[in-house]
Amino acid sequence: MTDQPKTETGRISRRGLLGASAAAGASALAAPAVAQEQATLEWKMVTSWPKNLPGPGVTAQRIADRIELMSGGRLRVRLYAAGELVPALGVFEAVSAGTAQMAHTASFFWQGKIPASVYFTAIPFGLLPHEHITWIEQGGGQALWDELYAPFGLRPVMAGNTGVQMGGWFKREINTLDDLKGLKIRMPGLGGEVMHRLGATPVSLPPAELFQALDSGVLDATEFLGPWSDRAMGFQKAAKSYYTPGFHEPNGTGEALFNKVALEGLPEDLGAIVLEACKAENGRSLAESDWENAGALKLLQEEDGVTVRPYPDDVLDALRETSAVVLSEFASKDALSQRIYDSHMAARARLAPWSDVAMRRFLEARDS
Amino acid sequence: MTDQPKTETGRISRRGLLGASAAAGASALAAPAVAQEQATLEWKMVTSWPKNLPGPGVTAQRIADRIELMSGGRLRVRLYAAGELVPALGVFEAVSAGTAQMAHTASFFWQGKIPASVYFTAIPFGLLPHEHITWIEQGGGQALWDELYAPFGLRPVMAGNTGVQMGGWFKREINTLDDLKGLKIRMPGLGGEVMHRLGATPVSLPPAELFQALDSGVLDATEFLGPWSDRAMGFQKAAKSYYTPGFHEPNGTGEALFNKVALEGLPEDLGAIVLEACKAENGRSLAESDWENAGALKLLQEEDGVTVRPYPDDVLDALRETSAVVLSEFASKDALSQRIYDSHMAARARLAPWSDVAMRRFLEARDS
Repeated sequence: MTDQPKTETGRISRRGLLGASAAAGASALAAPAVAQEQATLEWKMVTSWPKNLPGPGVTAQRIADRIELMSGGRLRVRLYAAGELVPALGVFEAVSAGTAQMAHTASFFWQGKIPASVYFTAIPFGLLPHEHITWIEQGGGQALWDELYAPFGLRPVMAGNTGVQMGGWFKREINTLDDLKGLKIRMPGLGGEVMHRLGATPVSLPPAELFQALDSGVLDATEFLGPWSDRAMGFQKAAKSYYTPGFHEPNGTGEALFNKVALEGLPEDLGAIVLEACKAENGRSLAESDWENAGALKLLQEEDGVTVRPYPDDVLDALRETSAVVLSEFASKDALSQRIYDSHMAARARLAPWSDVAMRRFLEARDS
Repeated sequence: MTDQPKTETGRISRRGLLGASAAAGASALAAPAVAQEQATLEWKMVTSWPKNLPGPGVTAQRIADRIELMSGGRLRVRLYAAGELVPALGVFEAVSAGTAQMAHTASFFWQGKIPASVYFTAIPFGLLPHEHITWIEQGGGQALWDELYAPFGLRPVMAGNTGVQMGGWFKREINTLDDLKGLKIRMPGLGGEVMHRLGATPVSLPPAELFQALDSGVLDATEFLGPWSDRAMGFQKAAKSYYTPGFHEPNGTGEALFNKVALEGLPEDLGAIVLEACKAENGRSLAESDWENAGALKLLQEEDGVTVRPYPDDVLDALRETSAVVLSEFASKDALSQRIYDSHMAARARLAPWSDVAMRRFLEARDS
């Protein structure tokens, strides 16, 4: 937020990016009198979500609202749902090109373009939400994320979290490793590759088609998110076995993308407000997700006839061993991927024993 | 933040509370030009910590710095270490009386005055950090906390978190329940009462005297916080058995106290900035504590010859059963205590199965 763009081109492009032509005094909020005398900046936030989608969509709107509130209306952020200004997966390009100043999305959407982006959401047997946040903030994760996105003129930060995922919905029980053979399962990304190597057949389908596919038998199994979202999708009507743990995606960090020129062009106070609004949302949305996931889990078990089942030990052993192989191969594709993987694994090596000693021991003692 | 004080007295007292007489333009930060034209408010933050004490002291300073940065210097918060303006445990009275506009402290310090304040830090076998935050934000905890402090003209919010605690340092191993008999242990509050009922002798000592007492044998055991702080205290030189879990205090929420008249007298944007700075610090300080605790745990085991030991199962069973009795008796003392306890327990009943299904299962699968 301190460096100004150095080129003439940069200066010219800043006018539009900063929204400097937006009308002053048009704030819908009751902003303090003094702030209203200042020019009002208007930013566009493009998102990958339907308007107010429970979880990520609500998080995006809260971030916009908090920025406006904390800035006394000096920075207004207009939110665009997926498809309103650009498609759900067009937000990366849009912010990179300066069509919008910021986006709310998730980093694993960019795997096709930037394979290593997946580390900034979750990897199989990786980090839990509080551990992921710790890696990004304390373990060098943010600097690597910045480096990965710098060629696109983007600055990424964490902005919300949907929590630990579940392992998915299965129409038949998984009792041995053989039960994975030929299983038609929807599981994107690295988790899907792990399943593939163990004999399953990953099927790629968009969320809107998942229920129908599971219900009709096109799919034998599907993962999605956690109880809150999954119950809203209706999967409990098509399958009764809900597996744990979500070995493939133990974290659900939301991603705010900023056009670097736009972010660095803000006055220091507004720049701090924008970043702190994202940071506060990490805890706020995790609390909301945990509360709603916990409530939905109870309803699934008590009203919907769903049984929560742990993956059998031999299946978990195979998933863990195969994940290690897949992750290692994936990391070796380029030097930056390898450095990010090494940093992620170093954080895991440091944090996992502490999570075990403090948190896991407490959970075991409390709940026996 | 929207209601103005209604009485004439309220209006008069606001002038001093709001720091309205502070000189404008004295900001040490490079605030935006427009903001510098506005009057600068100056607030006092009294704290219960030495200056920049790792963990809580650093958190308090960061909150002050973020408020100043986000407000463009319009609200400056001067931090006073314990004893500078008022004693460490005098901050509650000081903010209540308006001597300072805010404090950074911990709610369990007020047990002598307000027994139910302990629920807003931690209770035996209660809530882990992410669960506690969820209870406060989603499960009705904040409204009860507000109600508890309203008679003192105070508004409390969460402001930082030091994470899960450890069970403490023991000079001798605990192999059976009999080993607790006559044990001289420092464990304040409800955890100490549980130990007392199981035959131990709780000893009350201030932190500065703990190492010497443990080293000389005045104490057989002491709890304190987690590896980061405990190693700095030097306990590893006096005892080699470090017990888990920290059944008595599974959470370490910091408490920001606001004088209600001062907080509600702020312009809407500054009020939002103050509260959001506290909220962002919940995640930021938890990440810092987890990172440092994890690193210190490794050093304790690899360099200091410390052995981490789980409490034996029969000891844990007795601790759990006795905790339930102590908590139930404690809650029955007054109606508001009972309501807070009921709310806390309802949140635990909702959240614990989800933590078990999602988080504990993942930890077990990852780390076997």
